[in-house]
Amino acid sequence: MRMYDIIIKKRNGGVLSEEEIRHVVTGFTNGDIPDYQMSAFLMAVYFQGMTDEETALLTEAMANSGERLDLSVLPGVKVDKHSTGGVGDKTTLIVAPIVAACGCTVAKLSGRGLGHTGGTVDKLESIPGTRTSLPKEEFLDVVRRTGIAVTGQSGNLAPADKKIYALRDVTATIDSVPLIAASIMSKKLAAGSDCIVLDVKTGSGAFMKTVEDSIRLAEKMVAIGVHNGKKIAALITDMDIPLGYQIGNSLEVEEAVRTLQGDGPSDLTEVSLALASQMLHLAGKGDLASCEQLAREAIASGAALEKLAAMIEGQGGDPDYIRHPERLGKAPVCAEFRAVEDGYITKMDSEGIGIAAMLLGAGRETKESIIDPLAGIILEKKTGDPVKKGETIARLYTSDERKTEAAGKRMQEAVAIGAEAPEKRPLIYARVTEQGVVR
Amino acid sequence: MRMYDIIIKKRNGGVLSEEEIRHVVTGFTNGDIPDYQMSAFLMAVYFQGMTDEETALLTEAMANSGERLDLSVLPGVKVDKHSTGGVGDKTTLIVAPIVAACGCTVAKLSGRGLGHTGGTVDKLESIPGTRTSLPKEEFLDVVRRTGIAVTGQSGNLAPADKKIYALRDVTATIDSVPLIAASIMSKKLAAGSDCIVLDVKTGSGAFMKTVEDSIRLAEKMVAIGVHNGKKIAALITDMDIPLGYQIGNSLEVEEAVRTLQGDGPSDLTEVSLALASQMLHLAGKGDLASCEQLAREAIASGAALEKLAAMIEGQGGDPDYIRHPERLGKAPVCAEFRAVEDGYITKMDSEGIGIAAMLLGAGRETKESIIDPLAGIILEKKTGDPVKKGETIARLYTSDERKTEAAGKRMQEAVAIGAEAPEKRPLIYARVTEQGVVR
Repeated sequence: MRMYDIIIKKRNGGVLSEEEIRHVVTGFTNGDIPDYQMSAFLMAVYFQGMTDEETALLTEAMANSGERLDLSVLPGVKVDKHSTGGVGDKTTLIVAPIVAACGCTVAKLSGRGLGHTGGTVDKLESIPGTRTSLPKEEFLDVVRRTGIAVTGQSGNLAPADKKIYALRDVTATIDSVPLIAASIMSKKLAAGSDCIVLDVKTGSGAFMKTVEDSIRLAEKMVAIGVHNGKKIAALITDMDIPLGYQIGNSLEVEEAVRTLQGDGPSDLTEVSLALASQMLHLAGKGDLASCEQLAREAIASGAALEKLAAMIEGQGGDPDYIRHPERLGKAPVCAEFRAVEDGYITKMDSEGIGIAAMLLGAGRETKESIIDPLAGIILEKKTGDPVKKGETIARLYTSDERKTEAAGKRMQEAVAIGAEAPEKRPLIYARVTEQGVVR
Repeated sequence: MRMYDIIIKKRNGGVLSEEEIRHVVTGFTNGDIPDYQMSAFLMAVYFQGMTDEETALLTEAMANSGERLDLSVLPGVKVDKHSTGGVGDKTTLIVAPIVAACGCTVAKLSGRGLGHTGGTVDKLESIPGTRTSLPKEEFLDVVRRTGIAVTGQSGNLAPADKKIYALRDVTATIDSVPLIAASIMSKKLAAGSDCIVLDVKTGSGAFMKTVEDSIRLAEKMVAIGVHNGKKIAALITDMDIPLGYQIGNSLEVEEAVRTLQGDGPSDLTEVSLALASQMLHLAGKGDLASCEQLAREAIASGAALEKLAAMIEGQGGDPDYIRHPERLGKAPVCAEFRAVEDGYITKMDSEGIGIAAMLLGAGRETKESIIDPLAGIILEKKTGDPVKKGETIARLYTSDERKTEAAGKRMQEAVAIGAEAPEKRPLIYARVTEQGVVR
């Protein structure tokens, strides 16, 4: 079998066999297939696409390229979620404890933030003492004791994905639906849970800018999951404006805790409940409506908050920060971003606000950047709110005063004020399951 | 300027600027742009194509990547030709002496054969003593003295083309019309002639299998030439069956000489006269009809044959082989390929016959293969001819008896006999000039 012939076949619109797909993944991972052939192949996939079957086989081959976590040693139904990445998206910190409090097992691997989007691992690390690179046995042990743990990804999970992604990143082959789907799902398959809920973000701050593209991606990922015997569903949720009001690592922990106390912002609460009830439903805890009731009760009883505290304690952190998040403190510098005219906020571009938060120190410009856990943004207003000239729209927090200027400029570009209130966007656009799309 | 952005632009169907195209060619040639980015770019070009303007700029940048021959030091109008490659195609040995005999200057660079197609350099080397790697000054000097020389390509001519072609060869990006056109024309531009006639082969033994594809390629190349100030035209000629009756290096020299003596096969004579008259016409020697007359006279008077003899002598060979080509001799082994039934020859697949000749030692399977100058095939019959069972269709010549079996098998696959004579194909399908296509 020659890589050259496989490139030609895909270039000419052919459907690759299981053997051919395995040859590509194995050969590229072990170095037999050179980068230049792989990048030509990836560009051919960009143009010709892949069938659901091909994508599922690609994903499986990538998942099998390294270690696969065996979660069958843990009791209960193992439930996972994945977000395609957003600004202010702290839902993992909310939904994972909720579903754990409802009796599901959460043994979750999470990532770090890059660019304008955050990552759960960074958020956890803003809680003093919390460890996010637990060795496998210790990770499983925390889950066994508490029902929940969230750690960073191990180096040997889906190494093919790591290598392929790095090549796509420099060859303009990132935005291909089958390749994105295979990348995400290969890690999810290797991570070993039984049920997976995907939060596919859509809008200005998301990778997928339109609802239709987001649905296409969700369908592809659901098909891969089904093909690999998983219970899986996806929600298409809004990322045109940031989720909640707080962006930045400790700021997001604080808002997540508030939401688990039943006092969170309505958009964040609604999306979190939708994700949690979908997870519980896949885990067999009842229909969607009764699962939502279970989730609400886990918040109302304080059980979900206690799950988060137990997890933090299990991972070496001080659970008192969860019960009293004000102890996390605030960054020393606070600059106010104010309205320059009267009117309504007509736009609050998520990507721009994510970049402003990054510039304040909350995110990484490159993989090597060091994060300021206290840096970030608290929004006082959001899209649709009326503002008066001079009124505060957002507070910019940082430990380095010099950073506020660039961040303020980025805010100015991201926020627009107009005479009329914009049309309200939905928070949840669609639900994608094995049965199809419900809008 | 970043290669990444250029890949995205082309991938998305954008038209690249002169600066961007230069950046790609220069960066890749000097090693700043890695192979994996270039191959993704080439695959994007495969799918999105290039405008005539982009292709011309790409060609120019490739031509400028190394030395460009300055032929202005030579007297007269410098005339070049290029064939996209065929089986039994010895026209350079015929048309170059004809146009030189008519007062044009021919300072031509030629290539070696690979796979099923031959190369003029190999044919010249079958004439004892003939040198085909003349240093530039000596090459120009032979042209100055005789009006004609044909040598191998110097290593520093269009190095970008060499590097890009090597990458295309392993990444399934060969068959892209703009990339083929740029590859051919970059070498032609660097070779410095004023007038260029392209012989674009079409059919089973050609790179372009259909007349329409051949015309598209010809149009692209003519556009590049015009854009770069050249007088240029293309003929679309048949390569569904081999040209002439003799395939193999010394065998083709012998047939070329016979054609220059006015005694060549009619197909080879017709194509040669068409190419030669087109070259003379571009060089300003009159309309096509009077140029054909000039070409015929150069054959009838013996002037063209004497030009070839002078060239061979100028390049160190013994011109007596041109006047008495039977002195070249025959290979020691001759196997007859016979008809297995009565009927008409309905197919004589050029590529298959080219490969049979290669297997006999006349061509190269890899760049490292060593050529047997006497090996090859003499056809006794061609497509359309009636045959009787047992009658000789071809004689296979080689210096190594073991090679006849594989070659014979290949011949069997290449030649078909049927009950009815096939429709006759034209020899020349179309003429492509700056003014358009004439069929």
